[in-house]
Amino acid sequence: MENQFLLLPGPTQIPNRVLQAANQPMISHRSGTFKDIFGQVTENAKRIFCTKNDLLILTCSGTAGLEASVVNFLNSGDKVIVASTGNFGRRYRDIAEAHGMDIDYIEFPMGKAVDPAVIAEKLAADTEQKIKAIIIQQHETSTGVYNPLDKISAARGNHPALLLVDAVSGLGACPLKTDEWGLDVVVTSSQKALMVPPGLCLVTVSQRAWAAAANNHNHKFYLDLSKAKKYADDRQTPFTPAVSLVYALDEAVNMLNEQGIDNVIAEHYFRRDAIRASIKALGLKPVADDQVAGGAVTAVYCPEGITAAEITGIMREKYDTVIAGGMGDIKKTSFRIAHLGFVRDMDLIAAIGALELALYELGYKFELGTGVGACQKVIIEKRKVFTDRD
Amino acid sequence: MENQFLLLPGPTQIPNRVLQAANQPMISHRSGTFKDIFGQVTENAKRIFCTKNDLLILTCSGTAGLEASVVNFLNSGDKVIVASTGNFGRRYRDIAEAHGMDIDYIEFPMGKAVDPAVIAEKLAADTEQKIKAIIIQQHETSTGVYNPLDKISAARGNHPALLLVDAVSGLGACPLKTDEWGLDVVVTSSQKALMVPPGLCLVTVSQRAWAAAANNHNHKFYLDLSKAKKYADDRQTPFTPAVSLVYALDEAVNMLNEQGIDNVIAEHYFRRDAIRASIKALGLKPVADDQVAGGAVTAVYCPEGITAAEITGIMREKYDTVIAGGMGDIKKTSFRIAHLGFVRDMDLIAAIGALELALYELGYKFELGTGVGACQKVIIEKRKVFTDRD
Repeated sequence: MENQFLLLPGPTQIPNRVLQAANQPMISHRSGTFKDIFGQVTENAKRIFCTKNDLLILTCSGTAGLEASVVNFLNSGDKVIVASTGNFGRRYRDIAEAHGMDIDYIEFPMGKAVDPAVIAEKLAADTEQKIKAIIIQQHETSTGVYNPLDKISAARGNHPALLLVDAVSGLGACPLKTDEWGLDVVVTSSQKALMVPPGLCLVTVSQRAWAAAANNHNHKFYLDLSKAKKYADDRQTPFTPAVSLVYALDEAVNMLNEQGIDNVIAEHYFRRDAIRASIKALGLKPVADDQVAGGAVTAVYCPEGITAAEITGIMREKYDTVIAGGMGDIKKTSFRIAHLGFVRDMDLIAAIGALELALYELGYKFELGTGVGACQKVIIEKRKVFTDRD
Repeated sequence: MENQFLLLPGPTQIPNRVLQAANQPMISHRSGTFKDIFGQVTENAKRIFCTKNDLLILTCSGTAGLEASVVNFLNSGDKVIVASTGNFGRRYRDIAEAHGMDIDYIEFPMGKAVDPAVIAEKLAADTEQKIKAIIIQQHETSTGVYNPLDKISAARGNHPALLLVDAVSGLGACPLKTDEWGLDVVVTSSQKALMVPPGLCLVTVSQRAWAAAANNHNHKFYLDLSKAKKYADDRQTPFTPAVSLVYALDEAVNMLNEQGIDNVIAEHYFRRDAIRASIKALGLKPVADDQVAGGAVTAVYCPEGITAAEITGIMREKYDTVIAGGMGDIKKTSFRIAHLGFVRDMDLIAAIGALELALYELGYKFELGTGVGACQKVIIEKRKVFTDRD
């Protein structure tokens, strides 16, 4: 397996420290040694969510964590708002639908964020307080849009609806202040900004959400978070966890905390700026508006007459550089460069360099090096590279 | 993390080949390279189940796979027989209960197997064919009992009830012929005889089970196996899989197929014989009767006045040798030596050697070396070690 330049919205590149941590012999998941690791990573990961809430680590993908947020804290038939800005908004809706929720689905236009005023209006009209939850993405992976959770939380005001947040692709890449913003359930998975192979899912739960869980009647077993909490209080899991991935998560969380979560997010926004500057210099148009573009992924419209599969295919096959195609309505007409997790400055240069080579081969007219040059300028500014000329 | 002698019923020891396979960079789970690996491991793993049925690989623990066997193929309110021989029989019952099944729970005495005649009688009395499934363990991890699935399948005869089999701890260690015995759903997980870190679950599904799934109304999303099959037909998964564990599984399945599954199981029964001979030589009593003892785990009653925690504690703390305590009703009065997965002859010697040292320290009366000597005799016979004396 050769190393590629991997600029995907998950799995992301694994730093060597994390890969080595995973590469350890097995131990009993009921041993004191494992409990020490599990208790430590649980506590340390809370800093990344900016929370003192309970944090549960599950062995599953992020989707299962989103399902857990629905089945534990909502009953079938409950009225919920699903505020969507793209494909993963639709998936969260599908999950709520699979569990029989009464859904008010609002989809905002491509490339725009959720408008807090719309949420405020819906809640103001709900005088009987029948709406039990607002279901939303922190960051919509299909478009690269960041939703202003602080303003959405403010729009909720004193309405008792829970805020259930899909932070799968955005945690650690875009702002998220769980406690300050009163986010009741926040879900992420290991293979994004956390820089760990896929297989783990992290879920934080507020006291208000636990109160709702106490009145929950859904059928559930593996995703029963009350059981997970009971075991987590004793620094373990009800069912055998993915031990090697827990080792990896422990190391990755340490790396992020060493750097500080605010600095980690700032680095993601610098990368966003570098990629957006390059894209624009090449005459291409990003999907997300400037004001709402998040730090995790930049989705870009293809030049006319060129498909996403052509661009990503050449980049992958000829230059070992892996970016993602589009999703949903813009599957063929957009591609996505993720700048998520462990991404070095030269990964950005490689991505833009390979993109230019692919566009050149596909007949798009531009001057070679233009995108890379724009990327370099953002790097020079960020890294404060000075020469005699300055 | 220091290497221990790990004789647990999961996680089991990871062979170096498997550890190295897991220790690879990430790739896209939608790439052709990943599809090649995923398609290949899916096909190859079928040989271990002795089946041509569909095989699905999920990212979760074995418990979630058991839950999937209930929620996809049974509807709430369906009548089912749960045939139990211990703690994991109770867990399967709890899962069925959590999903609202109408359960006829039959628990067989400690150390005995499920009696096929009892199943035959229940089914014969069910003239209206209301029983939708027989839920059973292949191997009960708490006692080390192997249930005769061939005879239970024969007892089912032409009754249309599905046979749902928990093979989590027994697959690869005890006989299991999915197609020959008409097992409809068989579930295992990665951290047992498959010699892979925990985090993956494998489920086989018969055509008859798929027919039942077509009429299924339960709420489900992550564990929706019809969706998993749709993606598996294109050699991928609906949600991001645990990529590094799939690499590991691919290598481990290759190792098992190189050896041949019948040989792998025979090795487990040799280890069982070695451990049982040692235990008996030490004057201790195994929990499982001789005729029903499986190849995965040997549960042993503690000598009077000595608890499992004392024995396992000394073995672990002083001699880096990790065995399991008891479960359920015999939690404190039994311990379990697993001989499951990657276990070398000298791991057996280490386990018995450390057990003797612990028993000695706890005041149990016996001659040091008696257990190890008995173990060596079984090894000599198996390995055909001859000397001038023979």
